[in-house]
Amino acid sequence: MEQRLSLITLGVAELDRATAFYKALGWQAGFENGGIVCFQLNGFIFSLYPKTELDKDMTRSNTGTGCFSLAYNVREKAEVDRVLEEALAAGGTLLKPAEEVFWGGYSGYFTDPDGYAWEVAWNEAWPIDQAGHIALG
Amino acid sequence: MEQRLSLITLGVAELDRATAFYKALGWQAGFENGGIVCFQLNGFIFSLYPKTELDKDMTRSNTGTGCFSLAYNVREKAEVDRVLEEALAAGGTLLKPAEEVFWGGYSGYFTDPDGYAWEVAWNEAWPIDQAGHIALG
Repeated sequence: MEQRLSLITLGVAELDRATAFYKALGWQAGFENGGIVCFQLNGFIFSLYPKTELDKDMTRSNTGTGCFSLAYNVREKAEVDRVLEEALAAGGTLLKPAEEVFWGGYSGYFTDPDGYAWEVAWNEAWPIDQAGHIALG
Repeated sequence: MEQRLSLITLGVAELDRATAFYKALGWQAGFENGGIVCFQLNGFIFSLYPKTELDKDMTRSNTGTGCFSLAYNVREKAEVDRVLEEALAAGGTLLKPAEEVFWGGYSGYFTDPDGYAWEVAWNEAWPIDQAGHIALG
């Protein structure tokens, strides 16, 4: 298995609500057909799919929030607070205000309308290129 | 907010067990310090972090499996079954055997030792380049 990943799919309660949130963040869908919405990200795809459909596809009932996070790293420390504000303005909920963290960076969390957690972080050790690709320093 | 994402972090019950699984799939860690393990993927980073620490960092108790999936797309249909076999040999569990799917592809699911779901899929519509980056067709 190559060291790569193709898609992250979030199962959402209401596809329209979830889509509106990510679009309000400034994202543009690359594919949407009423049943699924896909966004082209940096080297892979992010998709939103109704929870009932994803449950059926996985043949299990997926419960809770799951213990995972998605992170959006920024290039400058001051951007963390700006992005958190943007996320709240778009309809997200503040989970944890930004703070200095033990590994030397600055980060906070918001949740999307389905409760999925996004960390917004500034980490000088990991460079981000123009295309948004990030690398372990 | 730019249309990109930097990290996916999975909260795991036992860091050593989770790390051993992903290494058994053939992945090499780019950073590990006993507290976190990071893998460089195609344009972003995949990390494993103890669930208790991730709960603390998020300031919430994250429950259940969460309704989300990670997908690994392959270049040829026959690869789907080979990758599922590799995942089971590495200690994964079969969630759904591969089958022809309504959107014209072929896919199945396995779960990692913490129950996180991975889809292995063949989708001719989305090209994968040499570096493993995938694009909406």
